[in-house]
Parts: sequence; structure tokens; C-alpha cells
Amino acid sequence: MDNELKPMDAEQLREHAHKMVDFIADYYKTIEDFPVLSQVQPGYLRNLLPESAPRNPESLQSVLDDVQKKIFPGVTHWQSPSYFAYYPSNSSIAGFLGEMLSAAFNVIGFSWITSPAATELEMIVLDWLAKLLQLPDDFLSSGKGGGVIQGTASEAVLVVLLAARDRALRRFGKDSLKKLVVYASDQTHSALQKACQIGGIHPENCRLLKADFSTNYALSPDVLSEELSHDTASGLIPFFLCATVGTTSSTAVDPLPELGNIAKSYEMWFHIDAAYAGSACICPEYRQYINGVEEANSFNMNLHKWFLTNFDCSTLWVKDRHALIQSLSTNPEFLKNKASQTEMVVDYKDWQIPLGRRFRSLKVWMVLRLYGIENLQKYIRNHIKLAEHFEALVCKDPRFEIVTPRIFALVCFRLLPRKNEDGGNKLNQNLLDAVNASGNMFISHTVLSGKYILRFAVGAPLTEENHINAAWKLLQAEASALLAN
Amino acid sequence: MDNELKPMDAEQLREHAHKMVDFIADYYKTIEDFPVLSQVQPGYLRNLLPESAPRNPESLQSVLDDVQKKIFPGVTHWQSPSYFAYYPSNSSIAGFLGEMLSAAFNVIGFSWITSPAATELEMIVLDWLAKLLQLPDDFLSSGKGGGVIQGTASEAVLVVLLAARDRALRRFGKDSLKKLVVYASDQTHSALQKACQIGGIHPENCRLLKADFSTNYALSPDVLSEELSHDTASGLIPFFLCATVGTTSSTAVDPLPELGNIAKSYEMWFHIDAAYAGSACICPEYRQYINGVEEANSFNMNLHKWFLTNFDCSTLWVKDRHALIQSLSTNPEFLKNKASQTEMVVDYKDWQIPLGRRFRSLKVWMVLRLYGIENLQKYIRNHIKLAEHFEALVCKDPRFEIVTPRIFALVCFRLLPRKNEDGGNKLNQNLLDAVNASGNMFISHTVLSGKYILRFAVGAPLTEENHINAAWKLLQAEASALLAN
Repeated sequence: MDNELKPMDAEQLREHAHKMVDFIADYYKTIEDFPVLSQVQPGYLRNLLPESAPRNPESLQSVLDDVQKKIFPGVTHWQSPSYFAYYPSNSSIAGFLGEMLSAAFNVIGFSWITSPAATELEMIVLDWLAKLLQLPDDFLSSGKGGGVIQGTASEAVLVVLLAARDRALRRFGKDSLKKLVVYASDQTHSALQKACQIGGIHPENCRLLKADFSTNYALSPDVLSEELSHDTASGLIPFFLCATVGTTSSTAVDPLPELGNIAKSYEMWFHIDAAYAGSACICPEYRQYINGVEEANSFNMNLHKWFLTNFDCSTLWVKDRHALIQSLSTNPEFLKNKASQTEMVVDYKDWQIPLGRRFRSLKVWMVLRLYGIENLQKYIRNHIKLAEHFEALVCKDPRFEIVTPRIFALVCFRLLPRKNEDGGNKLNQNLLDAVNASGNMFISHTVLSGKYILRFAVGAPLTEENHINAAWKLLQAEASALLAN
Repeated sequence: MDNELKPMDAEQLREHAHKMVDFIADYYKTIEDFPVLSQVQPGYLRNLLPESAPRNPESLQSVLDDVQKKIFPGVTHWQSPSYFAYYPSNSSIAGFLGEMLSAAFNVIGFSWITSPAATELEMIVLDWLAKLLQLPDDFLSSGKGGGVIQGTASEAVLVVLLAARDRALRRFGKDSLKKLVVYASDQTHSALQKACQIGGIHPENCRLLKADFSTNYALSPDVLSEELSHDTASGLIPFFLCATVGTTSSTAVDPLPELGNIAKSYEMWFHIDAAYAGSACICPEYRQYINGVEEANSFNMNLHKWFLTNFDCSTLWVKDRHALIQSLSTNPEFLKNKASQTEMVVDYKDWQIPLGRRFRSLKVWMVLRLYGIENLQKYIRNHIKLAEHFEALVCKDPRFEIVTPRIFALVCFRLLPRKNEDGGNKLNQNLLDAVNASGNMFISHTVLSGKYILRFAVGAPLTEENHINAAWKLLQAEASALLAN
């Protein structure tokens, strides 16, 4: 850069951003050359960088050289076609272009007035998505509800938990906090527990009910009912039920219609976390998995997982937006303006934890328009087909077993132990370490009923059948090596 | 886009992203042609867009045409050189390039293993910044403290409030929540009140102590001490004190050394919110405003306001990272990994509300390297000089008054009323509406001791002296018109 600082000169921006585009396109072109899981040791970067910020400007080229030499080795390549860990984190051309445009405007859309398009486009694309998912009309912005983009599913469950908590406190008195009880299965994402900690729910009132193989790790309505009877008899107040469609460990689907009925009879807030599997529900043949959403107070899915929308973008719908706003609004003088005071507009600051917010609806809009619904459905179906293909490969090898039924694009499997030392847990952990250490693929694990399980999650945009086959071949080879020892 | 979906084809990415770069560079080239404050009416966008998402893909050109025709009118141009509202939201070439690279990797850096570079670069650049601000060594990652990038100052104050709350509950018992009291001036950002609501602090225990013109709207240590004596005598437990360096309304600076001593003697958590003015403290001549930071438990500044780093990027330092982690950690099986289990690494998921997190340190690193410390200091000084220039213009016109002393780059001023109807509040509101409705500039307001005040915040990267002069000319002209009526 020049010594004279021109931090936003249009022509310098053009020149440097073109350079960055080529750098990024080249990265994607060679992405398969990198180890999928970074192989660096803790603290690797400290010695490669100076101890303090430079006094004088450096050139873009020198920074890009450092990205290549020093940063790349420490990157775990979530966009690699051989990335099968956790759940996917989709980038796409449309999502990336949306991020660029959003960063260029760099507006802070806390109130409508601070960029009306940011608020209004968000309302519109969330209505589009609600229709695509066939959510009940109560979730549309035309009624008393509406959608909002949160950063993550953790924030989504937190804000609705707060709304539910405050609704209960208004009803039962502000000293009843210690009586409020939350219900969910023990397969529910840890974000719920964190939300409870933050909201001051007493830890002993956070009921994470045991789910096991008998229900394929879904929450049993009977177990829930029993717990509720017991708690209400003890004078406790059930106020929040969280159901999951596609749990993190094994894509279990809680029985929404039954849970919804129970929630209704106890007047609990009913939240559905479909962070992962919600995306699949845009296909008519998978929509059944959210049957029962009619009874929900709130519904969440992450576009940044499996919907080609760059992180972060977690869409949340509520039936009663005023419940959210009552918990989260503040109205300082310095933010007052006519449009807000006359209540003609939505101010999303009151639907979320932070005040500031990015123009994230741009990327959603671009994904929907540049790809179209049919292509998005094909995209989901293709990953599920690839997961089925992997499942079939596993089934053909008698040394392995499928642990839970595959529903979407996650396969939970394990290598069967020869002798029953620890049930094969160490063996599978070693298998995971071996394939991940190769750099050729990245998978993660979970534990179900004490069993260490390997998770193979298909969903990276670049993944094709050959990557599945190569991953399976590597798993087989490492399994053979381990079993031979 | 093609009908065959290739969501991350490198050559298609290259082609489309180059096109987007030119679109964005052209936007910056013509940014002065747009009304700074969007002039649309609520609901304007609904009629311009279809009712549902398209079934089939559309071309990038058609989307860009729509951005121009339908989105641009609804954008309030925070990057315009004539943007003087709220506080600035800095974009820069370096920040923008960092956003591009971060979106390209699209890694979710919740744990070290998920991209070691994301965690380690964050630790390193936050140490760089801590040194640049001359924060005490306790805030460096080498000791028991460290820095972390939060999305916003709201999240920063929330996470430290939770850490302080839980520390107090461990000490005084979990049933003592209703006795916990928070202290700050009534000029403190509304984010503190929101954090209290979220954390379940009883609203009547949130002491927002009156600050007035006698202290230039800074918190008086005497007022604080008196309140503390009263509260402790009533059996309440003071646990959190928030001081501000550069309040949102008027850049008031709370007296940190005195407040720090008081916090210490009551064993309260002492948080410093320097969201706005922290940036100025990289200049030796402004560093004095954070003298007293030695006694703080936590310190926050927003790089996304006035430090050329695109939103969001709010840097938080704590002296005791374990206090944060105790409140915010969860450790589900599916995220366990060797590096985390052996405690050799930092897992930033336990320092924040969400689980997922973007690779935000890239943009900080690029800003520091591509500009260098000396240029960043010049950048800050230039804005302060421009604000001084505006202040001098206001002082020369006897129809106006400066309301509070200008310290950084915000000028608080007002038009003096001819007759003392409502003290001139309506007059100044009309003046604000008139200049904002012109589209030629955007300012915002506040109210101090009942007086409606105009805020002129210099800080947009493209602002030069001619924009200040033009804004002042417009203010004078509209004032003349109003006074003539």
C-alpha cells in the first residue's frame, strides 16, 4: 500500500480486490492439495509472526505470501470435498458474492432507518423460506410472527428461551425463576444447556431426558410426560420444550406432533431446532420430518450448514414476535427515530442479542435467486444419495456396522472389535485418528449409549462420488492395518 | 448461472467474483451520488420483489440490476463521506479483503482443531493490539488473561457480566441472584441494561446513576460511593461496575482511576467499555483517557467503528479467562478432541455466546499490516482534526452552541432557539429532519439533561474537509430557513 493512506479509494479497491479474487479462485482450484484437517501443533503460528504490529505499511503481496506460507498450514479445510466432519459449513459462489456485497455496504442494520433494505429484504427472504418449508402462516411477517436471521442456532435457542422465561416470569412472578424447568432429550445440542446457564435457569432444572437406541435417540413422549407429572407435582413450572429435527450426534428426529401436544397442554414454549435437517425439508419427500411444526412457538434452521449460504446465517421464525421484543428491546434516546416511534417498521435489534447486525439477507437472496429452488432440492438430494452410497459401502464390509439408521446425509458407523475389550471404543478412536492424520479426509465422532461412533457427514459443496469412494478405501485400509496389529 | 449446479466451481467463482469487484468499486466511485440517508417509505421493497423464491436460476446480471434498482434506494450509505450519524462503521480495502478471505475459507473456528490458524492468529493480533493500547500485561494471552473477538460491544458486556454474575453466585450462593447489583452512569450504552435483562439481574438492581453537565456526563465517584454505601447497608451485593470511555451520546469519559479503586474495594468486576474511543487511544496523546485500565477486569473496543475493520469486530480483553470459561463452556462429546482435552489450546467457543465463529482475525491482521501503526494513528488524528474544524465553524456562528466539550471526533451542538418555547428541542429536531431529508448528509441526535442535541460524528473513511464544509453550509442554510419561519 502507499504510504499515504487512502483506505477506501475505489481504484485501489478494484485493483486489490481483483488480486484477492484470483488468490481465492486459485485456492479453490487447488483445495484438494491441502491436508483436510490441519496437521500443525499447538502454538505453531506464534513463532512465525512478529511480536507486535508493524509501524509501516506492508504490501498486499507480502500478506498473501504469508497467508500461503503461514496461515494455510493452520487451516482445516471445511470446503474440501473430503471434509466429512461435524456438519458441513457450506460456501458457494452465490453466498460468497453476497458476503462481498454485504461487506462493501458495511451497514449496521440495527433499526429500519439505518438501511431499510437490510430489514425489508430479510423479512421478504424469510417469508420466502417459510413458504418453501411450508411453515404455518403464523410464522410469516404478515401476521403476529416473523423470521429473523441470527448468527447461530445457539443464539436462536437463547433468544427464544429468554422470551419464554420472561413470559413465565410475568405470569408466575419474578421470584419464580428457580421453579422454571426446561425439557429436551440428552441428544439436544449443548447450545440449550448454555442458553440455560446464560438465562439463569437453575442447572438442576434443565431436564436432558435420556434417549436411547429404542427410539433411535429421539425423545420419548412417555418419558417426557412422566417427568412433567413428577415436576408439576413437586411445584415446579415447566416452561420450555426443545425438540430437535436431526440431532448433532446422529440426526435423530424427535416426534414433533406428540411433543407439540404435550407442550400445548402444559403451556410450554415449544422450540424446534432443525439447524441441520431443516435444509432437507425443502424437498417434498423430506418435509414430513417437520410435520408437527404447527404447534411450535419457534423454528430454527441454519442456512450456513447445508444451504449454500456462507456462515453465519441461522434463520429463526417465531409466532409471537412481541414475546421476543419484550425480552430484548431497549430504546435509548440516541437510536430513536420517527419510523421506529410510529411502529411502522421492524427494528431487528429487538429480536437479537447484539445491537449491530450485518446485511445478511443479501447472501440468502443471492443463493435463492442464482440457484433457484429446483437446483437447491437437487443439491440436497445429491448429498443424501452420496450418503446412501457410503452407507451401502459400509454395509458390504462385514468388519463394520451401521449404528443408527441413516435419515439424511450423515452415516453413523463403526468398526467392529475382534475381541470385546472396551466394546471397540479405542479401536474406533484409533481409526479416526489414523484417517484424519493422513490429511486425506476429515471425519468426527460421537458417543451413543457408551459406544464410540464414527460420523461421516456428506455435505461439502465440492464432494462427488469419487471422494466418497476414496474416503471409504482409506477407512478400509486403516481398519485393516489396525486389525492386523 | 448454468442449470447444472456447480456451487463452488473455481473458474465460475473467478468470473463472477471479478464482476462483483467491479460492481463494488463502481459503487464506491459513485457513492456521493446517493442520498446518504435512504429516503424510502416503510414497506417499499415488498412490492418490488416476487412473493416467493424462484424455481429456476437467474443470472448474476439480473440480480445486480435489481441491487441497483431495488436495493440501493433502501440503503443508508454508512460509507458515504457525508455520513456523520451515530458512530462510524468503517470499511476499508484491507478490512474488505479480510472479509473476502474469511468468507472464502468459511471455517467455523469454535475449537482450535477446527482451524488452528483462526484461533492462533486471533490470540496474536489481540496481543498486538493490547500492546498498541499499552494495556497491562495481565490482558495478554501469555498470562491468565487474553483477548477475544466478539461480534459487538453488546456481546462483550454480556459475557463479562455473566462471568461476574457467576463468580458472585459461587461466592454468595446461587439464591443470591436477586441481591446482585450493577452500577454504571445513565450515559452507559443500553447494551448494559440488555445484558442485565438477559442475565436475569433484577431490573431494580440495575443502577444507572445520573450524570449531568457538572461532570460533562461522566459518572461521579461520589455519587457511586454514596449509592454503594446505601446498597450494602441494605444487604445488597455490588458485583459489577461498567465505566465508559467515550459514551454514545457525547463521548463522556468516566474517571477510570477513581472508579477502579472503588470497584476494587467492593470486589466488583470492573468493565471498561471503550467501544468508540478505544481506537483513539493508539495515539500517545490520547492514551491518557484509558489511564486506570490497570484496575479493570475487562476492556472492550470496537475495531468496526473507527479502526478500518469491517463489521463485526469487537475486541474484548479479560484478565481472568477462566472466569469467562466457567460461565460459557460446554463440552459435548461430539466436539471433544485431543488438543482440547489436554488443555494445550484455546477453544474460543468457551469465550462467547455462540458456538460457531468466523475467521475474523484475518481482517484485523490485514488492517494492521496493510496500513501500519503510523498510518492508523494519522487516520485517527485526521478525523479529530476535521471534527475540530467543524467545531470551529459552529463556534463562529452565534446562532449555534457547542453543548459538551469535544474530546474525540464527535461534536455535540445545537441551534439556539429565538424564543424559549420548549428550549429549542422542536427546532433542533426540525433542523435534523431537514438536513437528513436533503439526502446530502446524515446526522443523528441525543438528549442530554432534557435538551435535544445534534451529534456530528466524523469518522467515515472517505470524509475530507470539503464534506465537513458542505455539511456545515447545509446546516446553516436550513437553520436560516427554520429561523425565518
